[in-house]
Formats: sequence, structure tokens, C-alpha cells
Amino acid sequence: MESVCVLGAGSTKYGRLDDSIVDITVQASADAIDSAGIEPGDIKAGYISNVFGIADKQVHLGPVIMSNLGISDKPSLSIESACGSGSVSFREAYANVAAGFYDCLLVAGTEKVTHTGTEWTTTYFAYCSDFFHEGSAGVSFPGLFASMARAYLTEFDATEEDFAQVAVKNHNNGILNPKAHLRKKITIDDVMSSAVVASPLKLYDCCPFSDGASAVILCTEEFAKKVGGDYIRVTGSGRGGSPAALQGREHITTIPSTVLASKAAYKMAGITAKDVDFAEVHDCFTIAEVVDTEDLGFFEKGKGVEAVREGKTTLNSDISINPSGGLKSKGHPIGATGVGQVVEVYDQLTDQAGPRTVNDAHIGITHNFGATGASCAVHVFESV
Amino acid sequence: MESVCVLGAGSTKYGRLDDSIVDITVQASADAIDSAGIEPGDIKAGYISNVFGIADKQVHLGPVIMSNLGISDKPSLSIESACGSGSVSFREAYANVAAGFYDCLLVAGTEKVTHTGTEWTTTYFAYCSDFFHEGSAGVSFPGLFASMARAYLTEFDATEEDFAQVAVKNHNNGILNPKAHLRKKITIDDVMSSAVVASPLKLYDCCPFSDGASAVILCTEEFAKKVGGDYIRVTGSGRGGSPAALQGREHITTIPSTVLASKAAYKMAGITAKDVDFAEVHDCFTIAEVVDTEDLGFFEKGKGVEAVREGKTTLNSDISINPSGGLKSKGHPIGATGVGQVVEVYDQLTDQAGPRTVNDAHIGITHNFGATGASCAVHVFESV
Repeated sequence: MESVCVLGAGSTKYGRLDDSIVDITVQASADAIDSAGIEPGDIKAGYISNVFGIADKQVHLGPVIMSNLGISDKPSLSIESACGSGSVSFREAYANVAAGFYDCLLVAGTEKVTHTGTEWTTTYFAYCSDFFHEGSAGVSFPGLFASMARAYLTEFDATEEDFAQVAVKNHNNGILNPKAHLRKKITIDDVMSSAVVASPLKLYDCCPFSDGASAVILCTEEFAKKVGGDYIRVTGSGRGGSPAALQGREHITTIPSTVLASKAAYKMAGITAKDVDFAEVHDCFTIAEVVDTEDLGFFEKGKGVEAVREGKTTLNSDISINPSGGLKSKGHPIGATGVGQVVEVYDQLTDQAGPRTVNDAHIGITHNFGATGASCAVHVFESV
Repeated sequence: MESVCVLGAGSTKYGRLDDSIVDITVQASADAIDSAGIEPGDIKAGYISNVFGIADKQVHLGPVIMSNLGISDKPSLSIESACGSGSVSFREAYANVAAGFYDCLLVAGTEKVTHTGTEWTTTYFAYCSDFFHEGSAGVSFPGLFASMARAYLTEFDATEEDFAQVAVKNHNNGILNPKAHLRKKITIDDVMSSAVVASPLKLYDCCPFSDGASAVILCTEEFAKKVGGDYIRVTGSGRGGSPAALQGREHITTIPSTVLASKAAYKMAGITAKDVDFAEVHDCFTIAEVVDTEDLGFFEKGKGVEAVREGKTTLNSDISINPSGGLKSKGHPIGATGVGQVVEVYDQLTDQAGPRTVNDAHIGITHNFGATGASCAVHVFESV
């Protein structure tokens, strides 16, 4: 097995973007290529993650992106796993480099939906649930995560203010990230007084719909050394699944796929949760981050809220959770999100994170899931 | 590298289907599992290929399929490469088994679009072209392949009747395939007198819009031997790309990605085009099959029509092209097509093809592309 590295990273701003899905993907890819110090011709294939290219009238994105980069002869594909598309695409590219099929790949995630409006987006996003059992009953994702939040409030010593604190923390981080969608300081009162979306979740408990594209260059360590730029190692890669519909699960205050994926990734990397310096986790709703930090092994089940309350997950505390601002503040262009998490880890571990730097960090992880965690991938990265 | 095998295969009928996209995919998958003689729990991950799940309100198909098969803990993903999705998904699964990441995978392709009507389908399929340069100018796939056909007629010694002969041949094969969509004998006159879709292509030069799902079980040879059923080896896997828009290509009577993918696949398998006994090729339009058989190295450039005219590509002639009936007669459920080709090769090489059997066949290939060949994958299979 080859040692696999991230050699460069690029990203557009996340938010409401005017450029086309093709243009933003090419921008992020070109930035990643520049960051890596390579030529487009060094890339042997393109792994694109995207869910709703149809919203901008472009499916089969791979060849269009490769053609725009001037490497139309190179193969490409699109990978979709709902909101977890980016990390699943990263995982496939990782497997191909590790196996020795390619020495250098482009992994680009992208989404462009804000121009379609909230109704279109909410409806189509619901097609990512188990639609026969969930969406067709009128439940979309805020409702599903609200069920998880209500169960959590019932089972554990938690309050809605605890969830609100997750949003406050992630906005504090996002303010320090020039690429973030919502760069706005908020208070617990702001969250508590925002409109109820699906009780107990309020507007500020929810991540925004965002446009955006992120890209990284993945290569063998031999290739990275030859190029000579800053690189980090991918030391663990794990995947897992959960029953597609929330109703099929024994407990809804845990996400089985996160547990499976993180255990596999930690095992491959030869680490435990205690070794992780910072984590980019899937906080599509505030409740999700709380559940994630427990399922990833950072805190015991039911103790994630206590950790938030005590400030254990703020920047440069016990474990920095979502230094980028997370989905909540940085934004959530669903096909791009998982790749964007890798961009953040690359920036952190190569000293390019500026004021949001996690001090003395050597090990970072990404955790990204689709739907209510029906699919999940976790990756472990280490500085060289 | 592990020796990779196809251990089982299943498929729904192709055509207009009433069942949901989830149901048809589960049916094909369950058939493949039965055919392989394994239990669902033997499967370590699911590779799903699909383009327009939104047409049946189900994106993020992987976890829904895995949950319905009772293996919700196993990871899954969806892969899209337009009409070439199936073979690209197969390629990714192949790479993962070859690398030793998994010993047994489900590869399932699926599409459900006929209920949306021709206008929806034509419009959305056009999003698989380079939409900015092609679709937005009002050109959909019949127009693009008509351009290729017109160029071919101009450059080479060919007639519209030659193209028609491809349709006649593939219908002759499809009649022998109980899973085929259009099981109807046709004549050259039928083709020539059918409605003009985009001159010189007429209705009977075009494959139909189809629903359908196909699945195969991919595993290591060690796993296949332990199970003990019929299996075939995957001995070559190649991919390639072409400029996304037809206007970006130097010549439009050849598809560069086919040449790249087939050369790579033959090289890996240690064969030449002469060694191939039969081929399932991408005949979305009759002109495509002619161009394919040249680009795959079976005939010289410009001589593909002569081969058709002289009956060199009929069942059990020089080289049997599309014994299944091809996209033209068997049908083209776009996410399923590439996987369905593998089902045909499995049936042929394990003596399960009945009256359409290619006699004494030992080597078969699949050739499947997206759009006008912007993306392509070729695989070589050999009997044990």
C-alpha cells in the first residue's frame, strides 16, 4: 500500500455565489493545483462529488471540469452520498492512490443550489432521506434532526441552550475564516429567539443552504516529495452505514455509521480518539455536533452537551471542534462539504489557518455523513 | 493485486417498469446475490450507479438499497458518469477489490425515467452533455450523434442503410433475450421509413428510454473459490476521457476515450482486439456502434460499416457485437446499462445465455460511455 498524502488545497468562498457550478469547481480545482505546485497534466483522474448538478443544468460534471482544466483525456467520475458526498469521493480517490492505480488525483466537491430558492432545495434535499418512509410522510431534514434533538433532551441532562452554545462556538470560529458563509457573531439569546424551524430546533440551530466548491490534490508520498511542497499524510480511512430511515434504528441519539467509520479509521491510523487534536465534524444541525463528538469517542454518550457547556470544544481548548466554523457557520454546499473539511485540515496542519490556527496540532480528523448518517466516512490526517 | 471475479449476476427486465427505483434495484441485487450463492451479509459494500434518482424521488440510493437488503451497516455510494455510470461504478468496485480493501462487493446500476415522459427525459439527459456549449444551444443527444453520423457519411464510404443494418442486427439478437426492452424483428425498410429524429438519424436508429436495474457480485478469486459457484475473471480495466463538448474534438468520427480505455484494458489483460470473441458496446445510436467497433480495434477506421454490411458482427460471425441486443434493442436504463453489459458477459461465459450464446467464447469485453463519449470505461473478462 502506498502512503497517501494531500499536497494542495483550494476552495471558493461558501455562500450565495453568482458563478456557474462549472466555474466554481474549476476555480477551486485551479487553486488546489496552484497550492500543490503541480501542473494540470500531473493529474491522472478527477473525482468529483456533487448531488444536485441538475439545479445548474450540468450533470456528468467530471468531463466538463477536466476539459476546462485542459486535461480532457483524463478519466473522471461523480460520486454522490447526499451531504456526505465529499468524504466518500475522497475515500474512493484515497483507495485508488493507496492501491497504486494513480499517483496523483484531483478530488473536487461542488454544489450550486441557492438560486433555486428554499422550496426547491428543501424538497430535493428530502429526496436524500429514505423518501418512501420519511420524505413522503412530509418530514424533511430539520424534522428528522428535531426528533433526534427531542430524544436527546429526554434521555440526557441537556437543554436547548446547550445546543445553542454549539452554534455560538461555531460562529466564533467562522468569523476567523474568510471563506465562511455566515461570518457573524451570535449569542445564545440570538439562537433561542430565532424562528422555530422544527421544535426544539430553531433557525440558528440549522446550517445554511450554501453554494461552494472545494478541491484537494491527493498523491503518493513519493510524488509529494518529488514536487517538494507542503503535504500531510492520510493515515486512516473508515466508512460505515446506518439504517437509511431514522425509524429503522434502535436509538436515535447515536449514529451507527459514525461509530463504525471512526473505529475503522482510528484502527488503520493506529490512534485512539484521545490522540486527535482537532476535528471537522458534520454539524448540519447543532444536535448533530453533540451526537458526533460522542460517537467519535471524544466524550461519553450523554456528556457531549456538558463538554460544550464547559467550553471543552472551543478553539484551542481540550479538543478544537470545527475550527473552520463547521457546516453551521462556514456553510454547507452539500457536495463540497466533505472535501472542504479536508481543505481545513490541510490548512491547519501546514500552518495556513491564520487566526483560527489550532496550536501544536499534529492529528486532525474529518467526519462527514449523508442524510441522518445513513452513510458516513471518517479520515485521519497527520502532519509530516 | 488480487485476482478479481464476477461471481453472480441479476437483472430486471428492461423497459417500462411500474415498480419504484428502490424496488427494481433491490430485485436485481437479490437476484445477483442468489446467482452468486452468497448471503447478503457476505457483501462488504455497495456500489450503486444511477443518474436521475430524482425522477423517482430517491437520491442517496446506496443506504436505502443496503437497508432493504438487510445490511444497513455496510457502506455504499452512488456513482454517476451519465450513460457510462454503470461501467465506471464497476471500475471503482474493481479497483477496491483488486487493492484488497474488500473481498466481496455488490455493484448495482439502476434507472427509472419512463414515467416522466419524453420531454422531461430529453431535457434532463441533455444536462449530461457540456450544457453550456451544447444543451443550451438547443442540441440534445440525437442532434450530437446526428452530427457524428453526417460526418461519417461524408468522410467514408457509408450509407444510411448501413447504419440501419446495425439496428436490424441488434433487434435480431434482442429477440433472443427475455430481458430486452424492444423484442421486435425489424427490417432496413422499417428503419429507413421511421420518423426522422435528427437527420440522418431516424427513430429506429435510436435506442429507447428504458427503466431497469442490473447487478453483479464482484469478489476476489479466493472468495469465489470458497463459495464454489460459476465465476469469470476480470482481466483488464481501462478508462479514458474526451473533450466534453463535441466541438472541442479534432475529429468527430472517433471517440478518443474509447481508444484510451480499450488500449489500457487490453494492455492490462495482455490481449489484442483480435483475441476478443464478443463485445457488448455502447450503441445508443446506430452510428455509435459503427464508431465503437473501429475505436475498439475490431475494424479499421471507416471500415466499420463494411463489416456490418458483410454481416461480420452478427451473432456467431467474425465477432459477435452486442449479443444481448445492445442498448438499441435490450434497452438503455442509463445508470444500469454498464452493469447490464457485465451481466450479459457473465451469462455468456458461464453458459447461461440460451439461444443467443456466442459459441466457444472465452474472452468478452464491455464498452460503455457517457454523453458523446466524454467518459468511457472498457473491461475485459475471461472464462475460468
